[in-house]
Amino acid sequence: MISKKHIENAHLRIQSHIHNTPILTSSKLNALAGAELFFKCENFQKVGAFKPRGAINFALQLTQEELKNGLCTHSSGNHAQAVSLAAQLLNTSAYIVMPETAPEVKVLATKGYGAIVTFCAPNLQAREETLAQVQQKTNAVFIPPYNHEWIIEGQATCAKEIFEEVNHLDYLLTPVGGGGLLAGSALAANYFSPKTTVVAAEPEGADDAYRSFLSGILVPSENPKTIADGLLTSLGPINFELIKKHVSEINLVTDEEIIHAMKLIYLHLKVVIEPSSATVFAMVLKRKEIFKGKRVALILSGGNVDLAKLPF
Amino acid sequence: MISKKHIENAHLRIQSHIHNTPILTSSKLNALAGAELFFKCENFQKVGAFKPRGAINFALQLTQEELKNGLCTHSSGNHAQAVSLAAQLLNTSAYIVMPETAPEVKVLATKGYGAIVTFCAPNLQAREETLAQVQQKTNAVFIPPYNHEWIIEGQATCAKEIFEEVNHLDYLLTPVGGGGLLAGSALAANYFSPKTTVVAAEPEGADDAYRSFLSGILVPSENPKTIADGLLTSLGPINFELIKKHVSEINLVTDEEIIHAMKLIYLHLKVVIEPSSATVFAMVLKRKEIFKGKRVALILSGGNVDLAKLPF
Repeated sequence: MISKKHIENAHLRIQSHIHNTPILTSSKLNALAGAELFFKCENFQKVGAFKPRGAINFALQLTQEELKNGLCTHSSGNHAQAVSLAAQLLNTSAYIVMPETAPEVKVLATKGYGAIVTFCAPNLQAREETLAQVQQKTNAVFIPPYNHEWIIEGQATCAKEIFEEVNHLDYLLTPVGGGGLLAGSALAANYFSPKTTVVAAEPEGADDAYRSFLSGILVPSENPKTIADGLLTSLGPINFELIKKHVSEINLVTDEEIIHAMKLIYLHLKVVIEPSSATVFAMVLKRKEIFKGKRVALILSGGNVDLAKLPF
Repeated sequence: MISKKHIENAHLRIQSHIHNTPILTSSKLNALAGAELFFKCENFQKVGAFKPRGAINFALQLTQEELKNGLCTHSSGNHAQAVSLAAQLLNTSAYIVMPETAPEVKVLATKGYGAIVTFCAPNLQAREETLAQVQQKTNAVFIPPYNHEWIIEGQATCAKEIFEEVNHLDYLLTPVGGGGLLAGSALAANYFSPKTTVVAAEPEGADDAYRSFLSGILVPSENPKTIADGLLTSLGPINFELIKKHVSEINLVTDEEIIHAMKLIYLHLKVVIEPSSATVFAMVLKRKEIFKGKRVALILSGGNVDLAKLPF
C-alpha cells in the first residue's frame, strides 16, 4: 500500500538528484485541441526521460552493503540509463542487459554513464536469463523497471510536481507501457488533486493494458509492434491493481496518429520527444469530445529518439 | 540614446504579451564545453523566436490613428510572424512582403496569424520596392526588423530576463544578423549586468558584422550564403554603433560547425532550434579557450525550421 506520505518522502529523497522539469504551453496546440494543455517536459529530465525518478528512489533506499556490488537491470532503453545514472550518483557499478536490437543512441548513452552492457536476444526470456547470469557473477542488486512500490512512488513525483504548479486540472494524461508512470500518476492525483481524472494512452500495436483494463484480468503483450518503442513492455501486476483502482480510462492510438501528434509537438512546442511521448497528445486529438474546454496536463515521458530516423 | 529606463519600460509594456521563456541546462553539454552553460529558450517564445519582443514594443507605441491602417514589413521569416502577431494583438491588419524563396513553414505560419502576404524577388531592392507599393496602397505603418530604437529596446528584454534569473554570468552570447538582438543584449548587459561580457557568433558565409566590427566601417553582406537563414541580413547602422560600443568580440563559425552544434542541442537539450540558434554553441565549442570554466548564457534565438529538411 503506497500512502501519500510514501510519495512525499520519495520526492524529498530524490529532489536534489532530479530536475523539476518545466511545463510548457502552446496557444496553437490549444487551438488544435480545443482545450487548455499543459505539457510536463520529462524529455528534459536527466537521461532524457522520467525514469530516474523511480530508479533513484529505489537505489537511495539500499544499504551500503547492498550497494557495494552494484546495480543491475534489463532494459532496451530509458530505464537502462536511469539505473546507470543512479549507480554513478552512488559511486557503484551498473550492469545492464540490453537486447541486441536496442537503438544505438540508447546503448551509447547507457555506456556514457559508465555502465557495463551485456547484449542478449530481443525477447523477455533471454533478457531474464542473461540478467540472472550477470547477477550470479556480480551479486548486483536488481532495479526493476516498473513492477515495484519504490519505482511507482518515484514516478509519482512527476504528477506531484504538476499539481504543485498547475491548479484546477480536469485531466492528467500519461502513456502506459509497464505502468510505472501511469500507476504513480494515478496515485498522485488521488492524494494531491482528487478532482483530476487520470486517463492513459496506449499504442494499438501494444494494447495489453487496454485489454487488461477492459477485462479486469492481466493479459500480457504478445509480439507487440509499435513505433512507440518505450511502450512495448507488458503491464506489471502491482501496477495493474493500482491502475484498475485509480485510472478512469485507457484509449488506443495508432502509429499514424502518434507520428502526426509527434510532428505537431516538434513544430509548435519546439521540443524533441520520442514517439511514446506523443501518444497522449494523439489521444487528445482523437477524442476531442472528452477534453473539449478542459484543463489537461500531458506528461511528455521522454526525448530519446534517433534523429536520423525521425518519421517525418 | 537608449537608457536603462527605456528597456525597463519596454519590458513592462510587452510583459503580458510575451513568454518569459525558460532557461535550460544540460550536464552533457557543460561537459562537452568545459563551461557552465545556460540556454535561454527563445525558440519557445511566441511565433517560435525572440522577434515579437521588438515588434510588439514598437506596435504598442503607435497611436490608434496610426494603427488603423495596419502594420507592414518585409521579412523572409520570423519578423514577419512577429509583426503579424502584433497586428493580431492590436486588432489591425498585417501586410507582409516575403521573398518567393522564403521557407514554406514560415509563409504558412505568417498567414496563420491572418497576415496578407505579397511575394517578391529574393533581393533587398525588390523587397523595398514591393513594400513601398504595399504602403502606398494601404497606408500601413512599417515596422522595421532591427534598425530602430524601439526594436532594440524590445529585443533587450530577453537578456534582461536572463540577468534576473541567473547571476554572476561571465559571458552572454547571441547570434548576429541585422543586430537587433545583439545590440539589445549588449545594452542590457551594460545596464543590468556590467560584469558580463557580450560576444556574438556569425556564420562565415554572412560575415558582414565581423568585417564591419574589425574595420570600424559598416560594410554590407554581399551574396551571403549560410544554412543559418535567419542571419542573412546586413547589420543596421543604429545597431552597429551600439555593437561597436558594447560588444567585446564577434567570432565566425562555419555551416559545418553550426550543423554539429545544432545536432548536439537536439540530442542533449531536447529542443527544436533553427540553424541560426546553433551558432552560439558552435562558437563555444570552437573557442573553448575563451569560455573554459566560465558561466555562459546563450540565447537560442528561434526554432522555426523545416523538419523535413533537418541537416542530420
